[in-house]
Amino acid sequence: MARNFEVFSGEVNLEKVEPLPEDFDPTAIIKDLLPPVVCNDAIVNGKEKKKEREIVLGRNVHTACLEVTEPDADDEVTGEREAYMASVLARYRKSLIERTKHHLGYPYNLDFDYGALAQLQHFSINNLGDPFIESNYGVHSRQFEVGVLDWFARLWELEKNEYWGYITNCGTEGNLHGILVGREVYPDGILYASAESHYSVFKAARMYRMECEKVKTLLSGEIDCEDFKAKLLLHKDKPAIINVNIGTTVKGAVDDLDLVIQTLEETGFTHDRFYIHCDGALFGLMMPFVKRAPKVTFKKPIGSVSVSGHKFVGCPMPCGVQITRLEHINALSRNVEYLASRDATIMGSRNGHAPLFLWYTLKPERVQRFPERSPEMSQECTLLEGPS
Amino acid sequence: MARNFEVFSGEVNLEKVEPLPEDFDPTAIIKDLLPPVVCNDAIVNGKEKKKEREIVLGRNVHTACLEVTEPDADDEVTGEREAYMASVLARYRKSLIERTKHHLGYPYNLDFDYGALAQLQHFSINNLGDPFIESNYGVHSRQFEVGVLDWFARLWELEKNEYWGYITNCGTEGNLHGILVGREVYPDGILYASAESHYSVFKAARMYRMECEKVKTLLSGEIDCEDFKAKLLLHKDKPAIINVNIGTTVKGAVDDLDLVIQTLEETGFTHDRFYIHCDGALFGLMMPFVKRAPKVTFKKPIGSVSVSGHKFVGCPMPCGVQITRLEHINALSRNVEYLASRDATIMGSRNGHAPLFLWYTLKPERVQRFPERSPEMSQECTLLEGPS
Repeated sequence: MARNFEVFSGEVNLEKVEPLPEDFDPTAIIKDLLPPVVCNDAIVNGKEKKKEREIVLGRNVHTACLEVTEPDADDEVTGEREAYMASVLARYRKSLIERTKHHLGYPYNLDFDYGALAQLQHFSINNLGDPFIESNYGVHSRQFEVGVLDWFARLWELEKNEYWGYITNCGTEGNLHGILVGREVYPDGILYASAESHYSVFKAARMYRMECEKVKTLLSGEIDCEDFKAKLLLHKDKPAIINVNIGTTVKGAVDDLDLVIQTLEETGFTHDRFYIHCDGALFGLMMPFVKRAPKVTFKKPIGSVSVSGHKFVGCPMPCGVQITRLEHINALSRNVEYLASRDATIMGSRNGHAPLFLWYTLKPERVQRFPERSPEMSQECTLLEGPS
Repeated sequence: MARNFEVFSGEVNLEKVEPLPEDFDPTAIIKDLLPPVVCNDAIVNGKEKKKEREIVLGRNVHTACLEVTEPDADDEVTGEREAYMASVLARYRKSLIERTKHHLGYPYNLDFDYGALAQLQHFSINNLGDPFIESNYGVHSRQFEVGVLDWFARLWELEKNEYWGYITNCGTEGNLHGILVGREVYPDGILYASAESHYSVFKAARMYRMECEKVKTLLSGEIDCEDFKAKLLLHKDKPAIINVNIGTTVKGAVDDLDLVIQTLEETGFTHDRFYIHCDGALFGLMMPFVKRAPKVTFKKPIGSVSVSGHKFVGCPMPCGVQITRLEHINALSRNVEYLASRDATIMGSRNGHAPLFLWYTLKPERVQRFPERSPEMSQECTLLEGPS
């Protein structure tokens, strides 16, 4: 996956980026303090340079960094700094406009318009913990959050009084949560995920100290159920926790949920011996609108579904939705450590603006356009790796 | 902790809330669809009702929920719904103003003014993964993020080329990360945390399947180093991972970092046998400005420090900062699973607006006011539990 990403990174993105306007000189104002507005030399200079990017974790390279200005007793200096900050922001905005125009390669829906939400931007809105448990902090948007959750529960056919969920910070949090719920339901369960699953799935396995079996994929990128079966047979004594991809990041492959369930059944795994988490980071939301696509529904024996909010719905900040069965969260709540924590989310504090955006963008005119946008988005995504 | 929280919840918050304006009728417009704008009856009706709140995890109670409106073929209906949404938002804004005015009980700094940032609000800014590794997604704010991180590294006296960190979604993510780094450095380490530590610390222990020793506290809420010593002596054979509180959520207690280190040394734990994570959700940022406060610095043998950005600095969305030693992240990177993930953060996608707010709010005039605000904020926090 990392390799695919790299091949792509050198190519598509840079070649499509137009140079910034000619009168744009990022170093013009305060030379000493000012690094390039955008990180990539290729863009700032208006030329295309192809270079291999090294991926070295734990490097701490200050390729681009805007210093936090320190207080100064001298008012004149302070005034200059104020002007400096204003100019940095103005130029940053300009670069965002350019980059947003040409951010080909990521399946983001940037078709959002939220004029009506602008009035709420300066409030510090925080949805603390469980969306269904009241908190002391009054400046929240739980009423919008629960409305959005209801909408998704309906989409995936889970009754209002049978689901639990929350608006996450991103698709990764959805995966981290879904797999954690699976592990809490089956503490000795083994995690099965196809090799083309998002990296957060394997990160979860490591974080949670779970045994993990990487399953082969078909050429299409779908999970290879023959290999899945073989691996299940090796561990018949332990419950199975399965990550099913509803759209992999690299090939946009959709695992055959029905075949996965059938394989489990054929191998002797009864419904009380497995937990399926559907990573629908992008397609989980589109699938119901695409004809003949494998259906994601809680009428099938699945445990949780997560999607990214910022990708298909379009939202100015990363966010996602996680829906699971209420019974699983009830199982967690019998655990005293979890009770003490008063919430079963991963993050304690959650951005209260995200539910507002989702609530607002899931409005009739936009939802009506989903079916027509789905195939187009789906094609855009193919062969591109998107972040979760 | 939960009990303290409850005692407080019934009292301070509600009694200080003024009723909404008399002409404000939340049910006036579309009666069927519209729940109260604020969850709590006590406020909407302009009366104070005290009631015990039950804390039951896994309940799915729709006390307040704003439905997502569905598409409708009838244009007239669509028009009405548009008007409905606009009115819901307008009234929501009104309730936010009220609640923001009277949100006593949470140590949030709401003294922010970010006029200059308004121009950036509609961009979908996403800092994917490691702040120091370039990503394909161009619409990011890494250059601001790294600037903020540099500032914090300087505050806690860690050299620019010796730290690693990132802007988190909240204090909880900082704790989850710090403790995970500790566990990766010492896989068989035991987690020690005082009973008054934030619940995310114990959540981490459970998530990461770590053995955890809850240490007693003094009356002040500080960790009891006598008990700490006794518990250390029980597990001399295993490394120690310690969560040190720089301001507990309930009593605002600051663990004596120096005494914790001394206790470790006296018990025979050499510096290569322990890892200290400092949970400075709120005070980690204030302490350097408060005279005679215990100093948080990487010149002492600590492994990581985290703070909440939205509390003291003031920021319209939850966020935080996590700083650790580069050498620890390098240790992680030698692990192949981590390498594959290309980033050592917990969440893959991160809100790119948060770094902009932090960068902007850490400007001279505001930083200059920190010392004078610190004692005041510190007092406000005492005896109140804040979210992380």
